[in-house]
Amino acid sequence: MSFLSNLNWRYATKKYDTSKKVPQDKLEQILEAIRMAPSSNGFQPYDVLVITNPEVREKLKAAAFNQPQVTEASHVLVFAAWDNIHEGNLGKVFDTMAEVRGASDALNDRRKSSLETFAGKSAEQNFAHAAQQAFIGLGFGLAAAAELQVDSSPMGGFNPAQFDEILGLKAKGLRSVAILGLGYRAAEGDWLVNLKKVRRSKEAMIHFVK
Amino acid sequence: MSFLSNLNWRYATKKYDTSKKVPQDKLEQILEAIRMAPSSNGFQPYDVLVITNPEVREKLKAAAFNQPQVTEASHVLVFAAWDNIHEGNLGKVFDTMAEVRGASDALNDRRKSSLETFAGKSAEQNFAHAAQQAFIGLGFGLAAAAELQVDSSPMGGFNPAQFDEILGLKAKGLRSVAILGLGYRAAEGDWLVNLKKVRRSKEAMIHFVK
Repeated sequence: MSFLSNLNWRYATKKYDTSKKVPQDKLEQILEAIRMAPSSNGFQPYDVLVITNPEVREKLKAAAFNQPQVTEASHVLVFAAWDNIHEGNLGKVFDTMAEVRGASDALNDRRKSSLETFAGKSAEQNFAHAAQQAFIGLGFGLAAAAELQVDSSPMGGFNPAQFDEILGLKAKGLRSVAILGLGYRAAEGDWLVNLKKVRRSKEAMIHFVK
Repeated sequence: MSFLSNLNWRYATKKYDTSKKVPQDKLEQILEAIRMAPSSNGFQPYDVLVITNPEVREKLKAAAFNQPQVTEASHVLVFAAWDNIHEGNLGKVFDTMAEVRGASDALNDRRKSSLETFAGKSAEQNFAHAAQQAFIGLGFGLAAAAELQVDSSPMGGFNPAQFDEILGLKAKGLRSVAILGLGYRAAEGDWLVNLKKVRRSKEAMIHFVK
């Protein structure tokens, strides 16, 4: 199994085989890759919701331009960034750091200065920062799925406010930023699967400063 | 080789062995993973700069709180998101789509409606959207490096305005959003390598809606 050998195999699946579910052990590996993804200062300022409830997914589909992947994928993950960064959420991360590595004056100082830094910025700025970290996690989830030959659909086409309402995210201090459908592609009926993959050329996208 | 088996092996390398360079074929595989990373609508609204020039890297280091990875890593990648999305940059992506999949009225309609959508938003909103896509690419680059057992340092601790100035990004319609150092960890001298990895618990970060 290899992520790199599946870069061309993977694609944004549009039509799932609804009879096939992602096995629990593969789901766990994908979630673990997301949980182990790096983030700025190791703060991991986002949560991940794994949605299998059919009624909830029907509602989410209606809030996602009725894209069928939202109900037809085996699992749907919602990446939800922290709507701000403060003692209430980041404090718990520092508690975990103290548990794992031991409490210290240096850690306490770092906690204080980090909280001060975020307090000096707007909620919107902190949310934008958190969302960026969530997208690293999305990348790790997509890479893990590809390695396991689990099909996936990263999706940004949805109404975040409606998603937040349906999932009760506001009360949890979260805002939805991306969806990741997981499952297995249908044998037929996917308009995208046979289209040539389009990517910007290496010459256009990557520049060398030698 | 496997990305998933290296989730714990990888860490944000702080001290590189300056005598070891990432071989060209591994660098190419990492860059290819980034280039193949998915993005919203497949637009890939960011560029990647590969910086090996020592003088440029000295300047970048000064603009990155003098973090030694900026000069000691084998290669330094700078992810630079488009500062806005318009005909001048997105138009070229649609040109590529037409080359690869063939021109069509549907593609022309999509081009027109996409450009209208971005024109209806502020440059800052479009940049924020582009930056999020760059972070998926960063995730893919990190995953590729892990699979190849190339050490890496994702870094957000730098002055973006200074980076943009040093690299002449403004004139290119780009804004730096993240750095990725690549190389091989030093045998000793890395304060982080032997510390226990800290991650939020599964229970804290991942929620199931069944």
